[in-house]
Amino acid sequence: MKKFEEKTIESETIFEGKVVKLQVDRVKLPNGKVSKRELIKHPGAVAVIPVTDEGKMVFVEQYRKPLERSLVEIPAGKLEAGESPEATAHRELEEETGYLADELIYITSFYTSPGFADELIHLYLATGLKKSAQPKEADEDEFVEILECTLQEAQKLMEEKKIYDAKTAYAVLYLASQNHRE
Amino acid sequence: MKKFEEKTIESETIFEGKVVKLQVDRVKLPNGKVSKRELIKHPGAVAVIPVTDEGKMVFVEQYRKPLERSLVEIPAGKLEAGESPEATAHRELEEETGYLADELIYITSFYTSPGFADELIHLYLATGLKKSAQPKEADEDEFVEILECTLQEAQKLMEEKKIYDAKTAYAVLYLASQNHRE
Repeated sequence: MKKFEEKTIESETIFEGKVVKLQVDRVKLPNGKVSKRELIKHPGAVAVIPVTDEGKMVFVEQYRKPLERSLVEIPAGKLEAGESPEATAHRELEEETGYLADELIYITSFYTSPGFADELIHLYLATGLKKSAQPKEADEDEFVEILECTLQEAQKLMEEKKIYDAKTAYAVLYLASQNHRE
Repeated sequence: MKKFEEKTIESETIFEGKVVKLQVDRVKLPNGKVSKRELIKHPGAVAVIPVTDEGKMVFVEQYRKPLERSLVEIPAGKLEAGESPEATAHRELEEETGYLADELIYITSFYTSPGFADELIHLYLATGLKKSAQPKEADEDEFVEILECTLQEAQKLMEEKKIYDAKTAYAVLYLASQNHRE
């Protein structure tokens, strides 16, 4: 018995899309009562903190339809079936920024919205960056602009709410705390 | 014209639940092509980093149905209609931990999953904690256990993947970087 486990009585799939699947579960609570849970299933993703030899962070700016605005974020992308997180990290870095990384170091993983979604993001640091001679093309419905910023510039983008998502906020705080340690 | 804006051609609401709303938009991309976007609408939330006078962080452990496991997280909860983020923070802190906070300091905000959801979390630091004489009751379908941990214990919980979500990982890294600065 897992702590506070909510046993599934019935599970209904409402929608299966390209990115998310929505399901509503009827569950039995620890006190025996019955409740409903709305669950988003997501394949999971990787995110990469690319740092150039000059110590600059590489970001991508792209439109985020759920927010009806563009955000400056670290490169990231969904896991493909059968693809390792490391392979996804290398692929997304090249597709979104044109960079190949000599070294990819695993930092941590976290669920983004555990209350309603199972999306898990694996976070990597990429160094030894070289521009790819023939960069892989991005998905045909992706439009991104690349920015290279110092840590201080990135912190300013956070204050301006241009950087405004959890994985990128974590990345900026992570690099700031690493620099502090050196 | 916003950068890389994706204009909505048609918007279909697939599901409206207690927590999330799912909508599929047909959009016109910057190159004129048409694509679809799956969007989760969420009311937004607050999260609180409660730190006791002894310097311990207060966490709640609860079952997360999307993950089919429990997680150790900082207290958090959805914004209610007409409620300010500060009021939500005080309410959720009391409901989930039984603590009242003398001081609530705004730290930052971030979107949790901007690729598919509009959930925005506002993060606060709560200090001057006193146990409430008559704590507000939690929602009737919420079962939580309270943990008070040093920063080092919290970092160990991260290594053990018991702390395993973005807002809590950010909170632990934030306090570690603050301590470093002192």
